Amino acid sequence: MSTLSFPQGFAGAGLSCGIKSSGAPDLALVLADAAFPAAALFTTNQLLGAHIPVCREHLAASGGLVRALLVNSGNANCSTGQKGIADNRALAATLAARIGARTEEVLALSTGVIGAPLPVAKIEAALPALLDAARPEGLADFSQAILTTDTRPKVHAEGAVVGVAKGSGMIHPDLATMFGFLFTAGRLPEDAHACLTAVNAQSFQCTTVDGDTSPNDTLVLWGSGRQDEEVGRVHLDPVARRLAREIARDGEGASRLITVQVHGAPDEAAARRVARTIATSPLTKTAVTGRDPNWGRILSAAGRAGVTFDPERARVWVGPATLYLEGVPQLAAEGAAHEHLVNEEEVILGVDLAAGSAQAEVWTCDLTADYVLINANYRT
Amino acid sequence: MSTLSFPQGFAGAGLSCGIKSSGAPDLALVLADAAFPAAALFTTNQLLGAHIPVCREHLAASGGLVRALLVNSGNANCSTGQKGIADNRALAATLAARIGARTEEVLALSTGVIGAPLPVAKIEAALPALLDAARPEGLADFSQAILTTDTRPKVHAEGAVVGVAKGSGMIHPDLATMFGFLFTAGRLPEDAHACLTAVNAQSFQCTTVDGDTSPNDTLVLWGSGRQDEEVGRVHLDPVARRLAREIARDGEGASRLITVQVHGAPDEAAARRVARTIATSPLTKTAVTGRDPNWGRILSAAGRAGVTFDPERARVWVGPATLYLEGVPQLAAEGAAHEHLVNEEEVILGVDLAAGSAQAEVWTCDLTADYVLINANYRT
Repeated sequence: MSTLSFPQGFAGAGLSCGIKSSGAPDLALVLADAAFPAAALFTTNQLLGAHIPVCREHLAASGGLVRALLVNSGNANCSTGQKGIADNRALAATLAARIGARTEEVLALSTGVIGAPLPVAKIEAALPALLDAARPEGLADFSQAILTTDTRPKVHAEGAVVGVAKGSGMIHPDLATMFGFLFTAGRLPEDAHACLTAVNAQSFQCTTVDGDTSPNDTLVLWGSGRQDEEVGRVHLDPVARRLAREIARDGEGASRLITVQVHGAPDEAAARRVARTIATSPLTKTAVTGRDPNWGRILSAAGRAGVTFDPERARVWVGPATLYLEGVPQLAAEGAAHEHLVNEEEVILGVDLAAGSAQAEVWTCDLTADYVLINANYRT
Repeated sequence: MSTLSFPQGFAGAGLSCGIKSSGAPDLALVLADAAFPAAALFTTNQLLGAHIPVCREHLAASGGLVRALLVNSGNANCSTGQKGIADNRALAATLAARIGARTEEVLALSTGVIGAPLPVAKIEAALPALLDAARPEGLADFSQAILTTDTRPKVHAEGAVVGVAKGSGMIHPDLATMFGFLFTAGRLPEDAHACLTAVNAQSFQCTTVDGDTSPNDTLVLWGSGRQDEEVGRVHLDPVARRLAREIARDGEGASRLITVQVHGAPDEAAARRVARTIATSPLTKTAVTGRDPNWGRILSAAGRAGVTFDPERARVWVGPATLYLEGVPQLAAEGAAHEHLVNEEEVILGVDLAAGSAQAEVWTCDLTADYVLINANYRT
């Protein structure tokens, strides 16, 4: 990962500016050679981090052209009222002045604790060093400095696209990620926003850690056009899906990446609804924590998703083992399912509703005592 | 509690028949002097415990007259196919024959592990002793023998009504309880089913432990009519609400009963939706576990409930302390909120959406590492 660079036209960096008391990196920057086209999606939460209305405004004013992306971690600048919005604007203006850009060409994002005032002075004081450090090889530093309780950076490059994400807690559609960034040296398609929406639907929308949608979730697609190739869903989907899975894998306290597969649904929306219900069921998730192939909890979660099916015709599997088939528990298969849960870091829970031909996949992680401890002690 | 008795016309008992390997009581009975009118509500889960279709059938065939209620814990007789249904029928028939009742006048309920065959022989072998033990003072034994991971029985008597419930895990509307029983020596109202539905809406429907609706949930109202008093919502509501709160208080691993109050909603359904979203938010629940008055998580959970409101006008409180008011965090109040979480076993989390005049209350409990441990190891 440390050998990866930003695509042509972009440079970046990350450092510690003192927001996190741990001294961990907490300020990250991506700088473009010129104002390049971008598209962005934001959380659907009614509570919005201060950066969200300002970013929307900037993108509208600039016609979607972005020159710089500044990200701080450790402080969400959320529920900070008009002061928080003014702080965000000030930060964008300061950075814009330093790089000779228009303020609306700068996006300044925040993630971290809700309700604490953003330490603007600390961030501004660190801007010269951050700008000085920005370079094409700065991808690893950038990806590190945007993290909160994530245990590791999430970077994936494939073809013309480089993606970076952070996740960990408060992860649920819509959007399923705190932050996702997709960079490319190619050209964005004409309707980049629609393309990004479609990419998101098959990637970050399929990830849940704890069912809690964050007020700061932001997904950005940004293309320099330095390479004469149009970058569309075929290029973006694999990177976005990989990052979405990484977010689930690195969910707070997680020991297993869980892929929930739902087959035989009346339509895709129903399939996804059942898959999400299984993926957010604390009982399903704690069963995986205990390496218990508890197909009854999977079937029971499916049964409360609001989708009509006949459990007597359903099939439930864990990894390679079918545990429930047409109303009959397959006790002999439990050993193989248990082995799957013990040995694999990526586990599969599946149910065929036998009520149609649509299917869906959702990614999540197990629910461990560590999740509780992390979140019981987050602010202390 | 041990001094409480069943209402006139009923007798009951509880004992261990060997379903639970721990040797804890696992078989319970309520016997009526004659076939008395009853109403029942069952889970809305697509997956149904074997007792549910049979109980529905019996109530329809008997015109709602019930002579005996048999309950086993430790085994849910769910996902056991046609064999499970046949087992339930056989058990009801055996008990009916012993007491000289018609089979359809017997309801046999099960709660516990999903997917294991019901040990019918063990239960049948224990019936003589159970019948022999049945007496009006058997309420405590009955309430004990229906428990699974509950830490204590839940019994509440008020006026003409005696209520018993069990809860613990897989608790969420609809229905919010594994089992609830409301006994009275009074007469049931003409439309007992509608009355019970209304009672349920303001009690067990307001309780959630982990968002997982069980396939076996059952609520029964049963009146002997030995006292010339019609028993309606005014009598039933307080008992049902008390039991619903007890279920939340004794949720798996719980250290706090949480009352979520939502005010200022556009209508009651919206108020309830926001309250349930807060009450099922793992981040809200773990904050209480950590005694952290994290109003940001409360507001953020409210924000994703699908109800439109302006967070800048909202108010958030924890116990007696207002922590967020019209866009401004009230930092000075955090100490009082922390004290509330530390000192009170019943804590209050509230939000006023400032978007109308409707309100709702939902009861839940905190999410602790014990919840994870209990459910990771449930079948092992």
